[in-house]
Amino acid sequence: MTTTLDQRPLDTVADFPAIPDGWAYLDTAATSQKPQAVIDAIARGYGETYATVHRGVYQRSADMTLAYEAARNRVASFIGGSADEIVFVRGATEGINLVAHSWIAQQLKAGDRILLSQLEHHSNIVPWQIAAERAGAAIDVIPLTEDHRIDLDAMAAMITPAHKFVALAHVSNVLGSVLDATKATEIAHSVGAKILIDGCQAVPRMAVDVAAIGCDFYVFSGHKLYGPTGIGVLWGRAELLEAMPPYQGGGSMIDRVTFERSTYAPAPTRFEAGTPHIVGALGLHAAIDYVDAIGLERIHAHEAALVADTRTALAHLNSVRVFGPADSAGIVSFAMEGVHPHDIGTILDESRVAIRAGHHCAQPLMASLGVEATARASFGVYNGPRDVEALVAGMERVKRIFG
Amino acid sequence: MTTTLDQRPLDTVADFPAIPDGWAYLDTAATSQKPQAVIDAIARGYGETYATVHRGVYQRSADMTLAYEAARNRVASFIGGSADEIVFVRGATEGINLVAHSWIAQQLKAGDRILLSQLEHHSNIVPWQIAAERAGAAIDVIPLTEDHRIDLDAMAAMITPAHKFVALAHVSNVLGSVLDATKATEIAHSVGAKILIDGCQAVPRMAVDVAAIGCDFYVFSGHKLYGPTGIGVLWGRAELLEAMPPYQGGGSMIDRVTFERSTYAPAPTRFEAGTPHIVGALGLHAAIDYVDAIGLERIHAHEAALVADTRTALAHLNSVRVFGPADSAGIVSFAMEGVHPHDIGTILDESRVAIRAGHHCAQPLMASLGVEATARASFGVYNGPRDVEALVAGMERVKRIFG
Repeated sequence: MTTTLDQRPLDTVADFPAIPDGWAYLDTAATSQKPQAVIDAIARGYGETYATVHRGVYQRSADMTLAYEAARNRVASFIGGSADEIVFVRGATEGINLVAHSWIAQQLKAGDRILLSQLEHHSNIVPWQIAAERAGAAIDVIPLTEDHRIDLDAMAAMITPAHKFVALAHVSNVLGSVLDATKATEIAHSVGAKILIDGCQAVPRMAVDVAAIGCDFYVFSGHKLYGPTGIGVLWGRAELLEAMPPYQGGGSMIDRVTFERSTYAPAPTRFEAGTPHIVGALGLHAAIDYVDAIGLERIHAHEAALVADTRTALAHLNSVRVFGPADSAGIVSFAMEGVHPHDIGTILDESRVAIRAGHHCAQPLMASLGVEATARASFGVYNGPRDVEALVAGMERVKRIFG
Repeated sequence: MTTTLDQRPLDTVADFPAIPDGWAYLDTAATSQKPQAVIDAIARGYGETYATVHRGVYQRSADMTLAYEAARNRVASFIGGSADEIVFVRGATEGINLVAHSWIAQQLKAGDRILLSQLEHHSNIVPWQIAAERAGAAIDVIPLTEDHRIDLDAMAAMITPAHKFVALAHVSNVLGSVLDATKATEIAHSVGAKILIDGCQAVPRMAVDVAAIGCDFYVFSGHKLYGPTGIGVLWGRAELLEAMPPYQGGGSMIDRVTFERSTYAPAPTRFEAGTPHIVGALGLHAAIDYVDAIGLERIHAHEAALVADTRTALAHLNSVRVFGPADSAGIVSFAMEGVHPHDIGTILDESRVAIRAGHHCAQPLMASLGVEATARASFGVYNGPRDVEALVAGMERVKRIFG
């Protein structure tokens, strides 16, 4: 936060046509609602300027190719990379799988080790398990601090030259804990390991600069950044992408095909086989323009204030346990003694409050928290104090029902 | 065609807002334009009913899950499969890669052989090359008949029990040649080989029934079927999908995750890691409703008439060579002596006629035709005689310029 930051709360809900009056949408960590500007960009992409990319010899297709590549440039400037380091994927999950398949599968040998943390999303666990199993490598798990952050002191103590790869969440999808990604990268690099940062919950909530972090790979999903479904980003350092074999084979990613032998295009094209999600890229461009116009520092401050209010109010309700650190980025997980989180979700829904209840695709974290599930409220630019009030009123109702 | 078929030409161009008056869009084989009904379904998905699927405990998310699964059911009924055999993928390319990775990688052994044809799209060549190289298997290529169809007599003569897998295009993306997919399947099954049919150019142009064909896998892309970008379909026979390991690891596709071991969900969920392209599925549903309301037999007859008129008119221009069989499904490739196809494309663009020129991601076919590239006109429901006239007038201009 800078001192010149506009301190007024955001009031953007009118930009979001799918949020009706009086609906407290608190499931942004699962997926964000879309501003009209994004919906308009998508409708324009299909309804005015539609054509394929990279292939047409007519003007409409040349224009669409420019728009598609402009989206790539926009993503690059948004996270501090360069355009040839941006691979459009379906989402963060595919980005991680691409690295696990194309980079790790080549580099990992029997006896090597991969370092993850206790709070990772399944998408940042399962691909490494599959890769490790194939290579005969092992996985180690960084524990959490008492206030539920990835313990970087423990990481520094446990990492060895056998660790070839580290993959960590920038912001926990359950707890909102923010990783010091720069420090984690330094620790990884101190033993020569490469590091991937899962930025799904970070890019909608804080300014991210991959060059400043110094990491090797960074992934995120468009649909959590107020953009369309089916599009996401893998950023990789150019020399790493250039050294990686293709992931999927098909049109566009090749240089020349014969039945004897095919040769591949340079990165990032090599990793984008087939017709891409053209209009998804255009929608993501509009989404980045939208959040950048508000400013990520303002968004971060806005969500931090909502989190603080929520934590304070929930703590005042007896029998509610709040997980995660106080400075969580936009996400609050909680539980009520004797009440299943699904019941909390159902009762809150009756009060027009939408939260998520479950393991949040983070079963190992649930195990370490000693629960099967949590209730989770997560905030976005469209939320305000009224949503916190609705959540707390709803929780009071839960308490009355189960009291 | 049945005798009760409506013989009037289709006149649907008013349904397509991105086609302005006087623009002859003849690049539908690359990607189709979208009817307003599809654009509206997408805008509704983002602007009215948006939520995540499969996870929410609130009503909006439950409703979206129903809509997403209704799209899966709609795809199943469209091609004659059952819903648990439908995997949503990014497009046909990903569908083929999924099979090449998850089925072939498990089944293929050194010395095994894969059978393709000379006219396949790169997407139906490169994934098999990668899989074959890994396994130490070999690829054989079915030649074409004189009129540029996949030669099924040759296929029957060359297939052996060493052939474990066959992958063929239902309709050639360059020539429009239609495969007798049922007969090809019988030949493949006669030696115990499995067969995948690439239906990208077939599903928008003819009625497809995978049960009647009897094949093992069928793939197509939504964006060529008047639907959104970033969504496609892999259909696989239930017992095959059930026996296949996952492709990508991540959220949703798991049963239970611990750091020691993860177990996977049943098909098709196992193959849909991460948040899916939710709104893409809704758009595809609307696209299928759109083409089904017209009727694929009518569409096929409509495009066949346009192809016949185009072939006749082009043949009357001296020095134009027309490729492919006379009964091509909606696609005409041609070349003019002494003129590079790219120049044809550029000059036609000045006449507001959009075609594609190039190798069409089918370099081995180009080699067998003895050309580096062709010009290609491909039709959709929105085209009519005026578009054929514009193409022919444009080609007369090309002839004058280069004459």
